[in-house]
Amino acid sequence: MLFKVEMTVNIPKDLPTAEADAIKLKEKNYSQELQEAGIWVHLWRVVGQYSNVSIFDVRDNAHLHEVLTGLPLYPFMKMNVVALCQHPSSIK
Amino acid sequence: MLFKVEMTVNIPKDLPTAEADAIKLKEKNYSQELQEAGIWVHLWRVVGQYSNVSIFDVRDNAHLHEVLTGLPLYPFMKMNVVALCQHPSSIK
Amino acid sequence: MLFKVEMTVNIPKDLPTAEADAIKLKEKNYSQELQEAGIWVHLWRVVGQYSNVSIFDVRDNAHLHEVLTGLPLYPFMKMNVVALCQHPSSIK
Amino acid sequence: MLFKVEMTVNIPKDLPTAEADAIKLKEKNYSQELQEAGIWVHLWRVVGQYSNVSIFDVRDNAHLHEVLTGLPLYPFMKMNVVALCQHPSSIK
Amino acid sequence: MLFKVEMTVNIPKDLPTAEADAIKLKEKNYSQELQEAGIWVHLWRVVGQYSNVSIFDVRDNAHLHEVLTGLPLYPFMKMNVVALCQHPSSIK
Amino acid sequence: MLFKVEMTVNIPKDLPTAEADAIKLKEKNYSQELQEAGIWVHLWRVVGQYSNVSIFDVRDNAHLHEVLTGLPLYPFMKMNVVALCQHPSSIK
Amino acid sequence: MLFKVEMTVNIPKDLPTAEADAIKLKEKNYSQELQEAGIWVHLWRVVGQYSNVSIFDVRDNAHLHEVLTGLPLYPFMKMNVVALCQHPSSIK
Amino acid sequence: MLFKVEMTVNIPKDLPTAEADAIKLKEKNYSQELQEAGIWVHLWRVVGQYSNVSIFDVRDNAHLHEVLTGLPLYPFMKMNVVALCQHPSSIK
Amino acid sequence: MLFKVEMTVNIPKDLPTAEADAIKLKEKNYSQELQEAGIWVHLWRVVGQYSNVSIFDVRDNAHLHEVLTGLPLYPFMKMNVVALCQHPSSIK
Amino acid sequence: MLFKVEMTVNIPKDLPTAEADAIKLKEKNYSQELQEAGIWVHLWRVVGQYSNVSIFDVRDNAHLHEVLTGLPLYPFMKMNVVALCQHPSSIK
Repeated sequence: MLFKVEMTVNIPKDLPTAEADAIKLKEKNYSQELQEAGIWVHLWRVVGQYSNVSIFDVRDNAHLHEVLTGLPLYPFMKMNVVALCQHPSSIK
Repeated sequence: MLFKVEMTVNIPKDLPTAEADAIKLKEKNYSQELQEAGIWVHLWRVVGQYSNVSIFDVRDNAHLHEVLTGLPLYPFMKMNVVALCQHPSSIK
Repeated sequence: MLFKVEMTVNIPKDLPTAEADAIKLKEKNYSQELQEAGIWVHLWRVVGQYSNVSIFDVRDNAHLHEVLTGLPLYPFMKMNVVALCQHPSSIK
Repeated sequence: MLFKVEMTVNIPKDLPTAEADAIKLKEKNYSQELQEAGIWVHLWRVVGQYSNVSIFDVRDNAHLHEVLTGLPLYPFMKMNVVALCQHPSSIK
Repeated sequence: MLFKVEMTVNIPKDLPTAEADAIKLKEKNYSQELQEAGIWVHLWRVVGQYSNVSIFDVRDNAHLHEVLTGLPLYPFMKMNVVALCQHPSSIK
Repeated sequence: MLFKVEMTVNIPKDLPTAEADAIKLKEKNYSQELQEAGIWVHLWRVVGQYSNVSIFDVRDNAHLHEVLTGLPLYPFMKMNVVALCQHPSSIK
Repeated sequence: MLFKVEMTVNIPKDLPTAEADAIKLKEKNYSQELQEAGIWVHLWRVVGQYSNVSIFDVRDNAHLHEVLTGLPLYPFMKMNVVALCQHPSSIK
Repeated sequence: MLFKVEMTVNIPKDLPTAEADAIKLKEKNYSQELQEAGIWVHLWRVVGQYSNVSIFDVRDNAHLHEVLTGLPLYPFMKMNVVALCQHPSSIK
Repeated sequence: MLFKVEMTVNIPKDLPTAEADAIKLKEKNYSQELQEAGIWVHLWRVVGQYSNVSIFDVRDNAHLHEVLTGLPLYPFMKMNVVALCQHPSSIK
Repeated sequence: MLFKVEMTVNIPKDLPTAEADAIKLKEKNYSQELQEAGIWVHLWRVVGQYSNVSIFDVRDNAHLHEVLTGLPLYPFMKMNVVALCQHPSSIK
């Protein structure tokens, strides 16, 4: 079941760089595990923004919530979640 | 080069059904040709809306404009275009 | 799987009354079948508005899309869809 | 008398964790007492957000205000309150 | 129980004047009956707008909905409803 | 001459409680003097918000500005000011 | 007593030109009478828009409402009204 | 050449009062020099707000930018700039 | 003196094609004369939209208003006008 | 390939002036190198704002992202990116 999620990151300027870097590294690992598991199926950077456009393939709403709130950067993110489904003209 | 495009269709209620159906059929064919050509790389329906979320892979901005304005439903659509690029955490 | 859906109805003033009434009757029947089937689990009127707040319990996103676009009043509605899940403080 | 209330929590990052945890625990207890009393009749988490969608059944406006401003997390919440009533198509 | 209701009227320009005048007269009578009954407790015109700011004193949400949707101009109005209660500094 | 004023209070969390309480007490006294003088003619709490809906009866614009900027909580308030006048359907 | 009023005109495209011209001429005369009377004290065109920025000097709110709703183009205008007063740094 | 400029001042609460007062005094002097020079031709206070509505008469865009960014309170202001010109109905 | 102007065209669907084409041709000619005269210094299409981003170099505000309202498509356009000036980092 | 980028700078008031000045100097140099390289093809100041309107000519989306995120002031900027293409009426 697919969802489009758009995330915008806003790390407070007073967070120590070392701490911020540690969180970003965890975020990268977490993200790549989910990608390899086929859950975070697409991940693109928005040009000029500290934002991404993502597509998640999850079992259900609860699964998506668990995945999103588990993001190490979650406390510094704004999220926008949109439920998707098959488009009648899609050839996939 | 990737772009996210979100399209919302609003066909006027006074357009004759036959005419609307003809346009929708052309739209479907046009869309599927672009999908098969690897230009319209993703196409999802937004749940509960006459809207889609699409990803286009085009040569450049002009190519995207040509593809979008060529849509048979273009005169009845609102479009939102966002430039994308590689995300540093993406495994693709 | 639960979704909150808010629907606002806007029937064009030039739709003949008989036609509007027929659609509203179909809407009522459709809505009550879905309620009896346990799919449309809550339906409230917003005070002062031709709008409702609804909770749907569906199998997945595609199921919700099918249910919503099947509404007889769908062509005259604006929809807002929000995915819900279990709240950790809920006793249900 | 029913109201939909949507609450978004934003706990300041400089609130000590122990203090935040104590408030959240009080919030949970307060919420569950109101649920058991049949006042806070529904409580759902919004997917991907630190937000909820709630339905309250209260005696009157003053009662709702008392209940909401009594929330331990109230100082950190944004609230949106919408008055509801019986929908003519509801089977309940 | 008090509510602030703000109403903006937008009568379509193609509604025949006689019909519009008949509706406005009904509206005036309806409004004055509710004022005399102590239900529509305040009614002010917004300067420069075809809008009003109103205070209603109703038994409950359902009563307010019945009163508002009974307005002869209701099909041509946008409404904004806000629940009010006693202010701790009010001397009334 | 009547104005609707909506005020939303946002006291910074780092203001010492004693200081905040002193300001709130002054605010209450100031408000009640204006109510007794027939200047602040209505004052309601918005349900679930630290906001009010107020009606002021002032000599002129300058008088309203003097009254509003004299509020002890003024530095912590957002204000929305709307000029009102007699409604043709009002029975008052 | 001063108010800033911003008006945006939107004449429906199906209004016959002769009728539109007659209304615009009345509007001009009405506007100039009010300017000569010292009531419509400033009137500027917004560059690129069918909009104006105006300053009115009126006896009270009711006077402003009477003046604005008397505009021949009033049925085709959106209005934004802001109450002004003496600025402490103004030398006038 | 005329421009409408609307300025809203937001002085941070942690700016020492003496410093704030010194800036405000400079602002007043600067403003009055520009008024006397016929550059800042109108200056009104918005009722209930720490905002003004101003009309500037400048040589060109660059002149306006120089004047506005020279305001002692500029770092604490939000600005909205609108280009104006002669209105065909204006008698001035 | 430079201005950025963004124009969005919305030609009503009931305008006869021949009439629309005639207006568009006039628009093109008008636009190219202004470009050749060094007044309309840049003109770009926004990808996916019937909109443009333009830079005008005009004598003053009145000149810009005359140029914009002279556009054959002006009655079908929304305009957004922003005054520009030399940027201190620009090498031009 | 052209993009319009609008940047608004908001340097935190607690950033030491020397540090801010150093960043601004780097920004100026970086900007001028890109201008000389024909990548940052236009750069204008918005009158009255700490904002600019810029036109970039880049190889592709990734190139634009690299250029924008490399701005020394990037952490203090809000960006708005719009893809442009040839306008059919442009004479260039």
